[in-house]
Amino acid sequence: MKIALDAMGGDAAPETPVAGAVRAAREFPLEIILVGQQDAIQQQLGRYPKRPSNISIVHAPDVIGMDESPAASIRKKRESSITIGVELLKDKKVDAFVSAGNTGAVVSASTLLVGLLPGIERPGIAIILPGVKGDTLLIDVGANIDPKPMHLLQYALMGESYARYVMGKARPTLGLLNVGEEESKGTDFIKETYGLLEGSGVNFVGNVEGHDIFSGEFDVIVCDGFAGNIALKTAESLAHAINVLLKRSLMMSPITRLGAFLARDAFVNLRREVDYAERGGAPLLGVDGISIIAHGASSGKAIKNAIRVAYESVRHDLNKHVVEAVNLYTQHAKEHSA
Amino acid sequence: MKIALDAMGGDAAPETPVAGAVRAAREFPLEIILVGQQDAIQQQLGRYPKRPSNISIVHAPDVIGMDESPAASIRKKRESSITIGVELLKDKKVDAFVSAGNTGAVVSASTLLVGLLPGIERPGIAIILPGVKGDTLLIDVGANIDPKPMHLLQYALMGESYARYVMGKARPTLGLLNVGEEESKGTDFIKETYGLLEGSGVNFVGNVEGHDIFSGEFDVIVCDGFAGNIALKTAESLAHAINVLLKRSLMMSPITRLGAFLARDAFVNLRREVDYAERGGAPLLGVDGISIIAHGASSGKAIKNAIRVAYESVRHDLNKHVVEAVNLYTQHAKEHSA
Repeated sequence: MKIALDAMGGDAAPETPVAGAVRAAREFPLEIILVGQQDAIQQQLGRYPKRPSNISIVHAPDVIGMDESPAASIRKKRESSITIGVELLKDKKVDAFVSAGNTGAVVSASTLLVGLLPGIERPGIAIILPGVKGDTLLIDVGANIDPKPMHLLQYALMGESYARYVMGKARPTLGLLNVGEEESKGTDFIKETYGLLEGSGVNFVGNVEGHDIFSGEFDVIVCDGFAGNIALKTAESLAHAINVLLKRSLMMSPITRLGAFLARDAFVNLRREVDYAERGGAPLLGVDGISIIAHGASSGKAIKNAIRVAYESVRHDLNKHVVEAVNLYTQHAKEHSA
Repeated sequence: MKIALDAMGGDAAPETPVAGAVRAAREFPLEIILVGQQDAIQQQLGRYPKRPSNISIVHAPDVIGMDESPAASIRKKRESSITIGVELLKDKKVDAFVSAGNTGAVVSASTLLVGLLPGIERPGIAIILPGVKGDTLLIDVGANIDPKPMHLLQYALMGESYARYVMGKARPTLGLLNVGEEESKGTDFIKETYGLLEGSGVNFVGNVEGHDIFSGEFDVIVCDGFAGNIALKTAESLAHAINVLLKRSLMMSPITRLGAFLARDAFVNLRREVDYAERGGAPLLGVDGISIIAHGASSGKAIKNAIRVAYESVRHDLNKHVVEAVNLYTQHAKEHSA
């Protein structure tokens, strides 16, 4: 298996992508192709005395900045690490592409160059969030901020396939993110989506609320990309605020400081459980190839985990299952309308 | 000053509303009118040996359940604690109404019976959230899930008045919740709202993201009620998950347990800082009277704090300032279009 990694993507590129590539190359049976400015990558690789033999470089002179306009940058920077990495995916020279770079640019390049799976109209970014009772896949968190109900149905089919075949849930439960649980709640958009999901054949449990995102009671939650993006970033914001305020509180007195010192393993454990950036990347579902988006602030470990997400998606033949789910739905819908 | 409190509202009514009323009656110079089933309220009041003289009861035989349809319950239960409490407000027999009951029913009753301020088309629920650098008022968190851009402009005017006159911020900064900071980001709805806010005379700083909700860097953030509701409930969900997972982590070993015991004051302090339910109620802005919504799970202390929010809103003549802000905007808009 070959995976291309955007060596220029992320706040600390190429340092952390290279660090992640080295860790992943040692851990997983795959070849990693670092895409980016050759000299800068070589320099970073030079820091590792034993460079793994399953890492190679494909030169890409241009870099798309984190805040550049996706459409314009894809058009202008034809030799960027994102464009060249996605072209490797399109030409089937790699099985997956991973980037911690400009999310919009990765979405645009993946959609325009690689194209979408048959029956899928828009890609969606899925993220796996930790919860009290287990993990929940939330889709879409920002690829499509003004979707049609049919797009959410397609997200449901893709999210269910991911939960079933990659996360290993036998019969994933799926909820629709809304402002209340009753079927009568929500906007016209939500009510129409509810109707589509009900007749779709997925294990649809009805409306769920923001409360349910971190409860871990549902395997998949679908939402429009606007609400999903707000929910995700609000959660990041709160986690950060709690972290800062807790540290401040723990410095209150010599006693609390001693307590914090003794309890430090518990804080490390908690961070491992809730810091989803450390859990890996967000699959961009719907693309006719595996494309994984990692957080811009990813550490080397987070990059390694994003590569693991790509590896698992390829290994479990995710897209084959998505196409089967779409076909099954289309057949099902035809029979019901006939 | 007289404040009516829904004694039947909330998960543990009438126990916690009565407890909150007793605390508030002792702390603030005001009269509290408990609205609800007289016998049940009397029974709860009987638990306090020294019942404050500034508490009285107005009997309301009906109770609207937390999950009842707002419109139907308001229509059918004409003698509910919410309806009778809101009627006291309408008839100017009280200066404010506070309820931890069915949010939708409070919004409907306040809007239909009391009416809206001149120039305001829809009420909005505002909530004050704690952040790293200070408090942020988020409006709307669910009164209006499918608003027009003009409604968000009105939320901005009302939120700014609240931040200025009740929260005491000299020149509040105001952001529009979006999926990115650039002016080009977002849906057509957001872009239109952006244009309205830019020409409105409020101290509009542009788009803000979910990241900014708990940063405390902005005084007021406006959003549609769908996204606001999702953001708020997601945050509650994450805070709960972190609490559960942290407790579990702290039980890991005898050492971490000892650490947790020594650091317990820090956890109490953190809870006080971040638990917004303990900070009081959410003002329902736009109603021609002060109407405050408390969390259904409010403790007695939270109810007392919701009464404090009502007290402060009345004391600072909030609605007079809102009307002035709306008039100023209307004049400003006329001059610009002339």
